[in-house]
Amino acid sequence: MAITSAHVARPARIRLGMVGGGRGAFIGAVHRIAARLDDQYELVAGAFSSDPDRAAASAADLGVARSYASFEEMAQKESRRKDGIEAVAIVTPNHMHAPAALPFLKRGIHVICDKPLTATLQEAKKLAKAIEASGTVFALTHNYTGYPMIRQAREMVAASELGDIRLVNVEYAQDWLAEPVDNKQADWRTDPARSGAGGSTGDIGTHAFNLSNFVSGLTLDTLAADLQSFVPGRRVDDNANVLLRYTSGARGMLWCSQVASGLENGLRLRMFGTKAGIEWAQENPNYLTVMPLGKPHYRLTRGGHGTGDAAARMTRVPAGHPEGYLEGFANIYAEAALAIVARRDGTPLDKAVTFPGVKEGLEGVAFVDACVRSSKRNGAWTSLAL
Amino acid sequence: MAITSAHVARPARIRLGMVGGGRGAFIGAVHRIAARLDDQYELVAGAFSSDPDRAAASAADLGVARSYASFEEMAQKESRRKDGIEAVAIVTPNHMHAPAALPFLKRGIHVICDKPLTATLQEAKKLAKAIEASGTVFALTHNYTGYPMIRQAREMVAASELGDIRLVNVEYAQDWLAEPVDNKQADWRTDPARSGAGGSTGDIGTHAFNLSNFVSGLTLDTLAADLQSFVPGRRVDDNANVLLRYTSGARGMLWCSQVASGLENGLRLRMFGTKAGIEWAQENPNYLTVMPLGKPHYRLTRGGHGTGDAAARMTRVPAGHPEGYLEGFANIYAEAALAIVARRDGTPLDKAVTFPGVKEGLEGVAFVDACVRSSKRNGAWTSLAL
Amino acid sequence: MAITSAHVARPARIRLGMVGGGRGAFIGAVHRIAARLDDQYELVAGAFSSDPDRAAASAADLGVARSYASFEEMAQKESRRKDGIEAVAIVTPNHMHAPAALPFLKRGIHVICDKPLTATLQEAKKLAKAIEASGTVFALTHNYTGYPMIRQAREMVAASELGDIRLVNVEYAQDWLAEPVDNKQADWRTDPARSGAGGSTGDIGTHAFNLSNFVSGLTLDTLAADLQSFVPGRRVDDNANVLLRYTSGARGMLWCSQVASGLENGLRLRMFGTKAGIEWAQENPNYLTVMPLGKPHYRLTRGGHGTGDAAARMTRVPAGHPEGYLEGFANIYAEAALAIVARRDGTPLDKAVTFPGVKEGLEGVAFVDACVRSSKRNGAWTSLAL
Amino acid sequence: MAITSAHVARPARIRLGMVGGGRGAFIGAVHRIAARLDDQYELVAGAFSSDPDRAAASAADLGVARSYASFEEMAQKESRRKDGIEAVAIVTPNHMHAPAALPFLKRGIHVICDKPLTATLQEAKKLAKAIEASGTVFALTHNYTGYPMIRQAREMVAASELGDIRLVNVEYAQDWLAEPVDNKQADWRTDPARSGAGGSTGDIGTHAFNLSNFVSGLTLDTLAADLQSFVPGRRVDDNANVLLRYTSGARGMLWCSQVASGLENGLRLRMFGTKAGIEWAQENPNYLTVMPLGKPHYRLTRGGHGTGDAAARMTRVPAGHPEGYLEGFANIYAEAALAIVARRDGTPLDKAVTFPGVKEGLEGVAFVDACVRSSKRNGAWTSLAL
Repeated sequence: MAITSAHVARPARIRLGMVGGGRGAFIGAVHRIAARLDDQYELVAGAFSSDPDRAAASAADLGVARSYASFEEMAQKESRRKDGIEAVAIVTPNHMHAPAALPFLKRGIHVICDKPLTATLQEAKKLAKAIEASGTVFALTHNYTGYPMIRQAREMVAASELGDIRLVNVEYAQDWLAEPVDNKQADWRTDPARSGAGGSTGDIGTHAFNLSNFVSGLTLDTLAADLQSFVPGRRVDDNANVLLRYTSGARGMLWCSQVASGLENGLRLRMFGTKAGIEWAQENPNYLTVMPLGKPHYRLTRGGHGTGDAAARMTRVPAGHPEGYLEGFANIYAEAALAIVARRDGTPLDKAVTFPGVKEGLEGVAFVDACVRSSKRNGAWTSLAL
Repeated sequence: MAITSAHVARPARIRLGMVGGGRGAFIGAVHRIAARLDDQYELVAGAFSSDPDRAAASAADLGVARSYASFEEMAQKESRRKDGIEAVAIVTPNHMHAPAALPFLKRGIHVICDKPLTATLQEAKKLAKAIEASGTVFALTHNYTGYPMIRQAREMVAASELGDIRLVNVEYAQDWLAEPVDNKQADWRTDPARSGAGGSTGDIGTHAFNLSNFVSGLTLDTLAADLQSFVPGRRVDDNANVLLRYTSGARGMLWCSQVASGLENGLRLRMFGTKAGIEWAQENPNYLTVMPLGKPHYRLTRGGHGTGDAAARMTRVPAGHPEGYLEGFANIYAEAALAIVARRDGTPLDKAVTFPGVKEGLEGVAFVDACVRSSKRNGAWTSLAL
Repeated sequence: MAITSAHVARPARIRLGMVGGGRGAFIGAVHRIAARLDDQYELVAGAFSSDPDRAAASAADLGVARSYASFEEMAQKESRRKDGIEAVAIVTPNHMHAPAALPFLKRGIHVICDKPLTATLQEAKKLAKAIEASGTVFALTHNYTGYPMIRQAREMVAASELGDIRLVNVEYAQDWLAEPVDNKQADWRTDPARSGAGGSTGDIGTHAFNLSNFVSGLTLDTLAADLQSFVPGRRVDDNANVLLRYTSGARGMLWCSQVASGLENGLRLRMFGTKAGIEWAQENPNYLTVMPLGKPHYRLTRGGHGTGDAAARMTRVPAGHPEGYLEGFANIYAEAALAIVARRDGTPLDKAVTFPGVKEGLEGVAFVDACVRSSKRNGAWTSLAL
Repeated sequence: MAITSAHVARPARIRLGMVGGGRGAFIGAVHRIAARLDDQYELVAGAFSSDPDRAAASAADLGVARSYASFEEMAQKESRRKDGIEAVAIVTPNHMHAPAALPFLKRGIHVICDKPLTATLQEAKKLAKAIEASGTVFALTHNYTGYPMIRQAREMVAASELGDIRLVNVEYAQDWLAEPVDNKQADWRTDPARSGAGGSTGDIGTHAFNLSNFVSGLTLDTLAADLQSFVPGRRVDDNANVLLRYTSGARGMLWCSQVASGLENGLRLRMFGTKAGIEWAQENPNYLTVMPLGKPHYRLTRGGHGTGDAAARMTRVPAGHPEGYLEGFANIYAEAALAIVARRDGTPLDKAVTFPGVKEGLEGVAFVDACVRSSKRNGAWTSLAL
């Protein structure tokens, strides 16, 4: 994807629809930029809100001609058009992911869905079956896996540059719910009916869990979770302290919090193997610190010396020119685009392409479920109910 | 521009052409992403190369239908179309900026031009007159002025939060020309006929000079420059150590280098006033450190607590989610879009809108010229020949 | 103690003896520098080794005239001299702390003892009783509590500047035992008979636990520990992942490791309250980052603006001139000296004086004991057996 | 000196006197700690103040028995005692360094003198002659050359690990004189009669100059200086922007300031050669960042992997336990002690021993002189008048 690299003949833009993401929403706009950044998608239709007036107004704002009052209508009508959408982005609150995805899946329209997969594990399993049955491309926007230096880390782990992983240390801590908050973003995220049983575990813990698995390649055996709802009246967890045991014998700690005063989006990953450790932080994502046993620490930079193919694939601008959150998010869209175009063209997909999908979605919802169950049993070691 | 903010009715996309930026080029692709990011431009025409075959192939790569063999042809034909381009992006080597801009200016087509303005001061003055005569919008992509925390710094200086500025300390140091280099990017940048008399001074020194002026609001009185060409055979400067004196009595140091081993894009700005100092670095641009006299340092984050309107206008995603080089670059395009649309609609332009233009372009070329003249006179204090 | 401050009439130096710390030892030399730094002690006697020849040679190395073949002999003979030692520093392996301390306590000689207090909880309780019975000053060198910015943090917490503490996050991670190691320092630390049942928990986990309690003022209710011995053949834990619950309802995570590849002495403390968070790291100890909810982060520096009396008491040189490990260690000696001189003179002790003693020693050994018991019961929540 | 290393038979402590450093002084106390830290000196005599009462009171504070009303008296009387001082530390304001040193030099007493050497170049040359004539050990406390990672940097430069040095970038910036200040420390430092013609150049510019020369091994050819006195009424420079040209063809920039709002003791050194760059900062001195051309940056830590003998000689505690300003200062005393003991014993001095002396003292005073002369001639390139 490097904009400095040799050109690649550009396929026609993928026609994209969107469910949710109307006026007042946050993540919908991020998805739109992500889709636009590399010019691989064109947003041509939307059911931007469950409120028909707001949906129409949002479409007008965005200059999207084909506006629908509901996602069912959009799925039905778009599937009948010759120039109908090839893919749909679902950016609703969690409890609507599955209902919104199903009509599109049924019609063979590819789905790019915000995380977590669903609000409940039962629903996640149903959706997973529907996806598999549909044969469509399904991408889940665990966007942090799109950061180039995360790809670098994963590549190094896979190449045994860290040796055997002994320890995983991952955290995602924020403070925006440190006090009672009353706004559109906070409301549904603290309402179990819409967000699911997990609060911080669902909203950001799933990101932390996914990211650490993506890099480590490890499989969780059991976890022991201590969940809290610190803010009076909070109905879901706003902090979780979790111990992890992997099937390989590795151990880990995962911390997610929405009450960590002063922290913004403190997603940080450390991993220690028999040969080296690594450290990465989302708030300054263009660096990966490598800490080899018995040698000085060195710092890899995105696009810089010593980085490999996996990061290079995800890099647009030269070293020293930072890329950020939107670029990382766009990388998930770019990977999904490769998969969608391969389907369209009937060509094989480059093995280097990877993006979170059904498996990661199921694991994420199962992670929340296991945290809640473990915490209710006073932190008993608990397996994912996959 | 904040994607979380209340919506604004979106004007029709600005029809954009491009001169240069074909296969093998770097900065053209950056301009294209910058234009696309906020969905305010649509690239519809291009003269992507002076080589007609390469031009056509590049247009095909990019899915741009109207491809021209020369910029003159593009200017002529586009100006006759009803749906012709409203603005053109010029992303050629320096010596072609003026020749490429003129045919568009003549026809009232707005220009977004890469920096420095021209390769020579004489040429810059001519171009400036042509721009003024044309009445068009002219934006020069000193992209670093688009970074939100740079806007924050400028706003704080303007509000006297630093007191009277005493000291400016700015540097832009890289290492990519530390050894003889032979590639398309390096070739023209080290060829005085194409880059102008300045090497590092023209390519990055102008950025450093522009950025410090943008933030400080100071006016240079004189400079004393010590230029070097360290690499054997290098025909332009690859390092410059410069002392600055401002009309206010403030003093400064400017360092630009392309031979600073290990540095990638080390653009860093510090400024010290009677009440506070500030520090900002491009490689981690989401932070601004403020150092008040007699109080602890504090750290402002893009989108975070304590930041003002000037930065908020340039911010897309929440605090803790980093934005980078492309977003900063896109901010220049977004500012220019506001100016272009205001012209189109005959509406007044919001006073908050600001972007580098003719004045900054002239100052930049005059800066290079003054550095070269000062250095030839053994570092004598020299004024800009504006 | 600030060397820039108004002078204080200097009392006569405290006559100090030492048990352990002969040739080949590490921590003894640290204690000697710590004792010497502020010129409040004079080392006049020693039983530097259990091997009489090595003891004598070590005394000669150090220029200490009164060398003893055993600590019993030293206690006996020194207590009979008019100019006998007033205090003794005990710097043996853990299992010898109690045996070495007892003969001095019995004779009213003050004791400065390395941590942990003892190798077993049973022994710790006995020693505690002996100390209380003796009426002597007893200082335990949890040296990290001597760092000025840790004093600052504690003062801020006590003044409710963080609000109610919700979360404690402390870690002490090293890598020096990441592989089988065979040297004097490693040998006794990995031998349960000499170090006690805890490996990393005893050697560094106790520091982390002590430090977090010192700053937070919280009382542990229960802990859940997952201990590992990653290195083949290791007989004690070399990594511990621990969840903490405090009586106040606050929660915490503690990680200690001797197998975290690439980490040197990574002691790091974070704490989050309803009003602010703080962060401090031992490897760069002159800074304390404060993260108030809803305001920018600010950075306090040792000796710098915005710091209070508690840190100022522990500070020797101006802000911007770093102090380190030895100075922090010396602060424990300096605090103990104030207590010893107050006893000597029969004067009241300044209330600001604080240093770790019996209580902290007992808690530390009980912490190790609880970790081991919890881990054996698969991470069951476990109280300290105090 | 590593306290973990094999023992070395300890010579008898060097009997030390002190001139200056009485009540209210700052640097005298630093010298005393530095002398004490490694137990190689014993402070036995002092002329702590030019005011006899204050001198006597200061001696009592410090527990120093032999107190003198004047340095002349001290030199005379001590030289007659069998147990008289072997060395004297001179910690007076600059203009008294030479007068105080001379009587001791005349009597063969070694001198450890604070920097700069003298207040005027003329005086410096005279003193240099006297020192050479005396045959004594003379150490000048450019203490920053005692930092282990500075020794590491010097060793790497000497071993050509950076290739040929092209660029030197050194700065020492503070803010303590950003406003008119009235205290004992500020008074003499801003009084040309006592500090010399240089303000910031003399007090801290000499440190920066010395440090960069110590590491680079380069010889200055000429400098161009722009000196300012920003604070109204200031009689000496409080800021200096200086360009440097070395005889090798290397170039440099030196900035020293006492009005850089928010900076404490911002001494920072960067150096760029044909093969690598390095960066070091005094406020966090345990790290040295190495930036090889074409490879990732790596970070050397004091005592850590990849460091060499030069740093190891200056290191007391293990990697990850920070050492600071006092330890670095003590290293100068430790080096001087080795020289003094070698003289005492008539043994050859280890070639690894190095500390600033007469040569560095002369260069420092000549640097200030050249800065003042250059600035008066509007920044003309000026040589040191050595």
